[in-house]
Amino acid sequence: MIKFNEHLENIEIYEAGKPIELVVRDFGINSANVIKMASNENPFGMSPVVSQAIAENSWKGYLYPDDSMFQLKKDLAKKFNVNEKELIIGSGSDQVLEFIARAKLNTSSTVLMNKITFAMYGIYAKQSGASIIKTNSLYHDLSQFLDLYREYKPDIIYICTPNNPTGEAISQESLFNFLDQIDINTLIVIDGAYMEYAKYLNQSFAIEPKELIEKYPNTIYLGTFSKAYGLGGMRVGYGIAKTEIIRPLLKVRPPFNIATLSMLSAIEALKDEDFVIKSIQANFIEMERYEKFLREIGWSYIKSATNFITISLPDGYNSTTISDKLLQVGIIVRNLKGYGLNAVRITIGKKEDNSRLFATIRELL
Amino acid sequence: MIKFNEHLENIEIYEAGKPIELVVRDFGINSANVIKMASNENPFGMSPVVSQAIAENSWKGYLYPDDSMFQLKKDLAKKFNVNEKELIIGSGSDQVLEFIARAKLNTSSTVLMNKITFAMYGIYAKQSGASIIKTNSLYHDLSQFLDLYREYKPDIIYICTPNNPTGEAISQESLFNFLDQIDINTLIVIDGAYMEYAKYLNQSFAIEPKELIEKYPNTIYLGTFSKAYGLGGMRVGYGIAKTEIIRPLLKVRPPFNIATLSMLSAIEALKDEDFVIKSIQANFIEMERYEKFLREIGWSYIKSATNFITISLPDGYNSTTISDKLLQVGIIVRNLKGYGLNAVRITIGKKEDNSRLFATIRELL
Repeated sequence: MIKFNEHLENIEIYEAGKPIELVVRDFGINSANVIKMASNENPFGMSPVVSQAIAENSWKGYLYPDDSMFQLKKDLAKKFNVNEKELIIGSGSDQVLEFIARAKLNTSSTVLMNKITFAMYGIYAKQSGASIIKTNSLYHDLSQFLDLYREYKPDIIYICTPNNPTGEAISQESLFNFLDQIDINTLIVIDGAYMEYAKYLNQSFAIEPKELIEKYPNTIYLGTFSKAYGLGGMRVGYGIAKTEIIRPLLKVRPPFNIATLSMLSAIEALKDEDFVIKSIQANFIEMERYEKFLREIGWSYIKSATNFITISLPDGYNSTTISDKLLQVGIIVRNLKGYGLNAVRITIGKKEDNSRLFATIRELL
Repeated sequence: MIKFNEHLENIEIYEAGKPIELVVRDFGINSANVIKMASNENPFGMSPVVSQAIAENSWKGYLYPDDSMFQLKKDLAKKFNVNEKELIIGSGSDQVLEFIARAKLNTSSTVLMNKITFAMYGIYAKQSGASIIKTNSLYHDLSQFLDLYREYKPDIIYICTPNNPTGEAISQESLFNFLDQIDINTLIVIDGAYMEYAKYLNQSFAIEPKELIEKYPNTIYLGTFSKAYGLGGMRVGYGIAKTEIIRPLLKVRPPFNIATLSMLSAIEALKDEDFVIKSIQANFIEMERYEKFLREIGWSYIKSATNFITISLPDGYNSTTISDKLLQVGIIVRNLKGYGLNAVRITIGKKEDNSRLFATIRELL
């Protein structure tokens, strides 16, 4: 028997959200009638500027990408007013999380995160053999974070704002007050995967990477092209931090970690910020319809600063039953049972898709 | 100062081969006049079946891929006559190498590999803190491998056939004789990134994954879409092994590690095996021209079973000078100085590109 690293023994193999193909296969529903509201992709897809550039350059996929990522780093550095050397590009911000775990953690490390937050923090920490400390609060309670930080002296603190899968955001003021109290040797990950939405909704939620890393050189800010920029399947995200943090992460970055057409799509996406703004505007118009609908049927929800809404199911309703019933008619939502919640997370879709969801839920009442 | 894992301190940040964009930028050469012969991409690009499918489906890049990889695993399982559960898909076979290192190695591990071989074996081993033992022979000398195996009891043995960057292949017979003498607890990686070429050249080089893993359940076979299939920039490779090996690797696989259009491109590429065969045929016709040319000018080379040829430079010629001079006229080749060789590795290009290279080298004589 070949032995593998012991700390992997208790890890389960991760299963991601269901793809459209599976619903087509398992329920015999025409793919045109399947709505995916489970993985928080931009329902408007990608900018036509991007899809056209991919189509025209598809033949270039045989060439390895520019591994120095010259153009993408230049464009991102300009956008965020940081130095190219303060950037690392990952296959989604997910991969930057992986780099952080691999460069920083080992079997004697401890990490601190919110009770309910993005699952990959814990998964990558476990893959490195680290111990995980969680708060006991649904929302980020920074005073509790502070108590646990003082008690456990974690190697990494993960802050997700707005938080996934709950949708609530932290104000810049309270985040900075918290960071003021953390020693400079503790690495703090600020995951802003949905920041474009939060910032649009309320400027007080805005965390500007440049200001963040200048004030707190022990932080790394994560951003992604997967959400507002509509490139979920292209797998491009980034980390912004001082070079003292970026350098060790680059040591565990594999060459060619961004596919050639994915790099191109991110570069093109930055040229059409107008598409992003319009997607976000449409998102919050539809968010209001969700809130109105949920008030009407008397279901409670978490006020969201993102492109999804998390609905707490009332007594008598089970998140697994609801998710399964929706799935059978071709609507894929995320059941949050695995997080210990009797809740579902729904990606805000296009107007007509949301209407179809509302009608379907009404039938289930 | 934030502390990172100590074993990373001596690792240098990897620098990959130069992209066309860099030559365009640095030397002001029109990109149409740059020939990339440094990274062993298929000079015929990808099958038109694939580029058309990417172009038509470019808009789908906003959706996360099917993380179960249902279709691609089904097609690969059929091609190799193995079970879907005996497959793991990576962002290039590179990423499968990374999974192997992360799942199997730690700071007390040892790995064994050839003196000159694919750089990533050593890089991923170092990232996990493992020690590296190398043979002292340019070619895979399996009796020396055996001696070192007995002396050091390595956790992993890496065999690259055909070997990169030298191009020589091992016969199935000698490989199996070697494997017969290795205990069942030692993991052996058989990297067949260029196997399609070797197999075409000489059937005795063919290592069939199914036969390999049935006979030697402690092996994992690696294959890729990056070379003969012409998808270098799409980043898709695979590992084939018994489930006892695949399962721990799946535990360190990040979700969505293959971009949506990359998965689609691999699925489409498997539909056009004719393109692959034609590329390989053209490759070996051109390989003969290289051999003839090199004999004419009296430079020695390693007989290659791949889509590249490694040329040992005679006294009075320096691989760095030659590579730089070629670069200045827009021909990118791989200088093997970093491997301790006064040699260059050249990807076999299209007929006209090879002719241009020959003419340029003649001018340098």
